[in-house]
Amino acid sequence: MSETHARRRHDLRTGLRERELDAMLVTDLLNVRYLTGFTGSNAALVVHAADEPGAETRTVFCTDGRYLTQAAAEVPDLEQVIERASALALAERIAAAAGAHRRTGFESHHVTVDGRDELADAAGAAELVRAPGLVERLRLIKDEAEVEALRMACAAADRALADLIEHGGLRPGRTELEVARELDGRMLDHGAAGPSFDTIVAAGANSAVPHHRPTDAVLAPGDFVKIDFGALVDGYHSDMTRTLVLGRPAEWQQEIYQLVLAAQTAGRDAVAVDADVREVDTAARAVIEEAGYGDRFLHGLGHGVGLEIHEAPALSQRGDGRIAAGMAVTVEPGVYLPERGGVRIEDTLVVRPGTPELLTLTTKELIAV
Amino acid sequence: MSETHARRRHDLRTGLRERELDAMLVTDLLNVRYLTGFTGSNAALVVHAADEPGAETRTVFCTDGRYLTQAAAEVPDLEQVIERASALALAERIAAAAGAHRRTGFESHHVTVDGRDELADAAGAAELVRAPGLVERLRLIKDEAEVEALRMACAAADRALADLIEHGGLRPGRTELEVARELDGRMLDHGAAGPSFDTIVAAGANSAVPHHRPTDAVLAPGDFVKIDFGALVDGYHSDMTRTLVLGRPAEWQQEIYQLVLAAQTAGRDAVAVDADVREVDTAARAVIEEAGYGDRFLHGLGHGVGLEIHEAPALSQRGDGRIAAGMAVTVEPGVYLPERGGVRIEDTLVVRPGTPELLTLTTKELIAV
Repeated sequence: MSETHARRRHDLRTGLRERELDAMLVTDLLNVRYLTGFTGSNAALVVHAADEPGAETRTVFCTDGRYLTQAAAEVPDLEQVIERASALALAERIAAAAGAHRRTGFESHHVTVDGRDELADAAGAAELVRAPGLVERLRLIKDEAEVEALRMACAAADRALADLIEHGGLRPGRTELEVARELDGRMLDHGAAGPSFDTIVAAGANSAVPHHRPTDAVLAPGDFVKIDFGALVDGYHSDMTRTLVLGRPAEWQQEIYQLVLAAQTAGRDAVAVDADVREVDTAARAVIEEAGYGDRFLHGLGHGVGLEIHEAPALSQRGDGRIAAGMAVTVEPGVYLPERGGVRIEDTLVVRPGTPELLTLTTKELIAV
Repeated sequence: MSETHARRRHDLRTGLRERELDAMLVTDLLNVRYLTGFTGSNAALVVHAADEPGAETRTVFCTDGRYLTQAAAEVPDLEQVIERASALALAERIAAAAGAHRRTGFESHHVTVDGRDELADAAGAAELVRAPGLVERLRLIKDEAEVEALRMACAAADRALADLIEHGGLRPGRTELEVARELDGRMLDHGAAGPSFDTIVAAGANSAVPHHRPTDAVLAPGDFVKIDFGALVDGYHSDMTRTLVLGRPAEWQQEIYQLVLAAQTAGRDAVAVDADVREVDTAARAVIEEAGYGDRFLHGLGHGVGLEIHEAPALSQRGDGRIAAGMAVTVEPGVYLPERGGVRIEDTLVVRPGTPELLTLTTKELIAV
């Protein structure tokens, strides 16, 4: 993995030179993790813009004494400073070498107003320049190490749901909370560090609430059961929704299920290199609107996933930009009929030059259990 | 609860007037929750400083459309704006009423550098004034509703550990991860929404690592097993550590256990109204230093708990300020012998005019299982 992280830092240096920055102080923990592999709860990093031989020897990582052993194992390739106030310690390093990096970028979208002042004091003569989103821009395009982690996370979720169904975990008489808890446990059985967000299990009328939290509500025959969940593996988040029926589906259930499935298929088909993110949303939304349910699909079509469960790009009318190869996104249209029930079908996929790679492999046929 | 939240907002208004602020824009989610009871993932709040009759009718809460029903149920007493960009929407309200609140405080310790500029643009003629920590200052002193939530969280943890032991969950041959997972499940059984942080189970030599993460390491006869865990109830975090022995304790284990217990008792005894937080740390640390293990106790003595697992005050040499009635703190000295094993004993307690109220009730006798 060291090579992977070195390559990411190389790419960041390219971005720094484009912005005429001499260095970058990275303080967001996820961004530090992306650039170094460090998984602890306190860290900062300085990356220098110059890409001459030995550039890496000037990259400095900082964490505190709790992580001495862990940092040595996870970040063997970088100079380490051990200091509790990690960002300030590196700002002081920048001050001490101010001739070498007068213009130092900082993450103005993460650093607080008060935090910036402390950094500026510590940085002395070096100028702190706003440089928001430089690392996130790299994180938009997943490399193979990231796709592999997402694959494992999606596989853990697929297997957990299959186990849950096979072992009779979805049946009338259980509560939403019981089902959610069993599913969470089964993800751990398949190697997840935990759920990637609070698992949604929504039965009957509750399935009409887009982001319902599981309750003591009891599953009943004929219910839709909407399950939106994911696994966390190596820091990467999977995200999948399936909606099942307890027993034989009623006609209205068949109808909205097939409608959402058609919209989801249209959405997935629209996820192509260079597509405008709004057009991807429109492709799925149009199917639902034509069926007269446009006002029952009130959220965006999807979002990026990776080190965060929600990250760029947003596949929605509020989004901006174009799809590119290597992005990992969800496609998750839904139709929600208040008091009756709702359907959402969601996959996680990786954009490829041709057809996207589907990571969530559970069937999208309507499952009746 | 509405009265409780109204009283907290009343107290905030007092703080605003002291700082000659006309209003405060609260954007940190935990602070919004503290002041309103709202538990969703997107919200902001404007509180006006004037405490004349009707002051509350000018308090405005904002969340987005996903939380329409939830916000109506949780925040029935405040005017509501429904808008996705909640902080910006309220900044625009401030702009529209700029005559009434020229000086509006904002949470400069939470708002990012880029975020502040967006708020300032939206706030128009109103001046945004740094006002860090005003709500946190109130949160330092827990009111009875908070103490009751902490009591329930601590009780869930106490019961989960008792169940774990009673059902033979701690035995040679199990892995740290298995034990951690069972304990987490038992906290859910006792009403927790989840663990209050990643449960630490550290067996044998791993117990010498202060913040060890549970692994596949197998528990063996004679091991110390250090368990640091807590439950989350109504948003409040409990925190408790117990160190047990598998089988008959060796002499060295007895020795360091009794030492840490003596230090913990000294620390708890020092938690008194008006005590300097550094003196509380010193009271426990001196016991360990006198026994010659000062260099084996490398972290602070304790920290506040509440809506966050770590919050003010810090009971450590780095801390600052005095203990006050109503603070909820941990007392958690430890002695760690590399390669051999370590002991930490931790309680959560609430400061009272006399003796603190102990919330974590599990025995501190050395348990041999």
